[in-house]
Amino acid sequence: MQTDNGIARLAQRTRIVLVRTSHPGNIGGAARAMKTMGLERLYLVAPLKYPHADATARASGAGDLLSRARVCDTLEEAIEDCTLVIGASARQRTLPWPLLDARAAAQRIAESPGEAAVIFGAEQSGLDNRDLERCGALLRIPTNADYGSLNLAAAVQIVTYELRMAAQAETPEAPETPLATAAELEYFYEHLQRVMEAMDFLDPGNPKHLMRRMRRLFNRARLDQNELNILRGLLAAYDKARAAKQT
Amino acid sequence: MQTDNGIARLAQRTRIVLVRTSHPGNIGGAARAMKTMGLERLYLVAPLKYPHADATARASGAGDLLSRARVCDTLEEAIEDCTLVIGASARQRTLPWPLLDARAAAQRIAESPGEAAVIFGAEQSGLDNRDLERCGALLRIPTNADYGSLNLAAAVQIVTYELRMAAQAETPEAPETPLATAAELEYFYEHLQRVMEAMDFLDPGNPKHLMRRMRRLFNRARLDQNELNILRGLLAAYDKARAAKQT
Repeated sequence: MQTDNGIARLAQRTRIVLVRTSHPGNIGGAARAMKTMGLERLYLVAPLKYPHADATARASGAGDLLSRARVCDTLEEAIEDCTLVIGASARQRTLPWPLLDARAAAQRIAESPGEAAVIFGAEQSGLDNRDLERCGALLRIPTNADYGSLNLAAAVQIVTYELRMAAQAETPEAPETPLATAAELEYFYEHLQRVMEAMDFLDPGNPKHLMRRMRRLFNRARLDQNELNILRGLLAAYDKARAAKQT
Repeated sequence: MQTDNGIARLAQRTRIVLVRTSHPGNIGGAARAMKTMGLERLYLVAPLKYPHADATARASGAGDLLSRARVCDTLEEAIEDCTLVIGASARQRTLPWPLLDARAAAQRIAESPGEAAVIFGAEQSGLDNRDLERCGALLRIPTNADYGSLNLAAAVQIVTYELRMAAQAETPEAPETPLATAAELEYFYEHLQRVMEAMDFLDPGNPKHLMRRMRRLFNRARLDQNELNILRGLLAAYDKARAAKQT
């Protein structure tokens, strides 16, 4: 019915990131779900209990994948080289981040040439606002409005299933210019914030509000390296003009 | 993102049939998976152990669905009024039955007007040849050729997810904030160009080159009114700072 080639290529550049997972059994269940669909790269950000016998037990035949899982202290560390970061979100968000269903998110990943991450928050609380600000889009799995209680492994199962389905269909187009990585974007946002502060543009009482909007805009746009360089050049030109004025 | 109407109608005429299930926990897990996706009608054919505390525990908030499950002695009884019966099959079959992937099977059910059933065999042995002969088609979930070990609840999760996706008529998302118009974008680009010129940032010999990149970036991002206002505010703040310096 299909070859494994598409998913094998996608698996090389696509990671699943579990953030602050409470129950180690869910880590094992997620590893198993990933492996059934041909995904391989599991990142664990600050798991509450890990390693743990429950994780190993629920991983079943996916223990190899679990033993290769990379444990990170922070989300930033887990995604620093990613050019596409999508956050799984069960809740309605007040902040209007671009929202994709699982299928559209998987298609976007399949079409995108670089390193990609799908991040899943803690079982009860999900991703927090700081996590969300690292994302280019949110992913929602359509569920029953009266009972949306997908457990973490089930959510990973559906997302990885969609990745497998999307990988069968797509071959990514190579962009002319490489995309900016998450770490590069962070430098840019820090610089932008300093400039906006120097301009008295940010509300000192709530500087994060505008910055969040700027993140949302530029994450959505998926800056390439050239564009990022232009924008950083603009900020540097402002700094230089300001320094010249002060001397 | 979608209404529940499509799946509510489909749920009225679509049943999930678990045949000779060995582990009652899997029955509970299947009930939970069904309910998350808005499916409601569970049939159990000759379950090995049922009712059972493991089933109730794993059903979690889907106990209502479990308590309404219909227990039958034979598959024939469970599907007698169905006009479409699709058998989930993990194995390659010698019998050349029409084979659909989960997505195509769900689409066929959504398009078919009558009572439909998806039947799942026992955990280890699957459906036997007598069961298969009751099916109009087989359904296979694409999995890793080296590790296709989907558990029963995970398989039901994916199939019911596909049923939900097939049932829901997509309605495009309305953006919360109106998008910027082409005319507004033109004002913004003109202003951006003036600021970039004032900063000596544009190459006087080829000012259009960088501006074209900026247009491409912001057009791709599809700015909404709020975002446009922030960006124009930034440019205005720069103008003001520059005017103050000159006086």
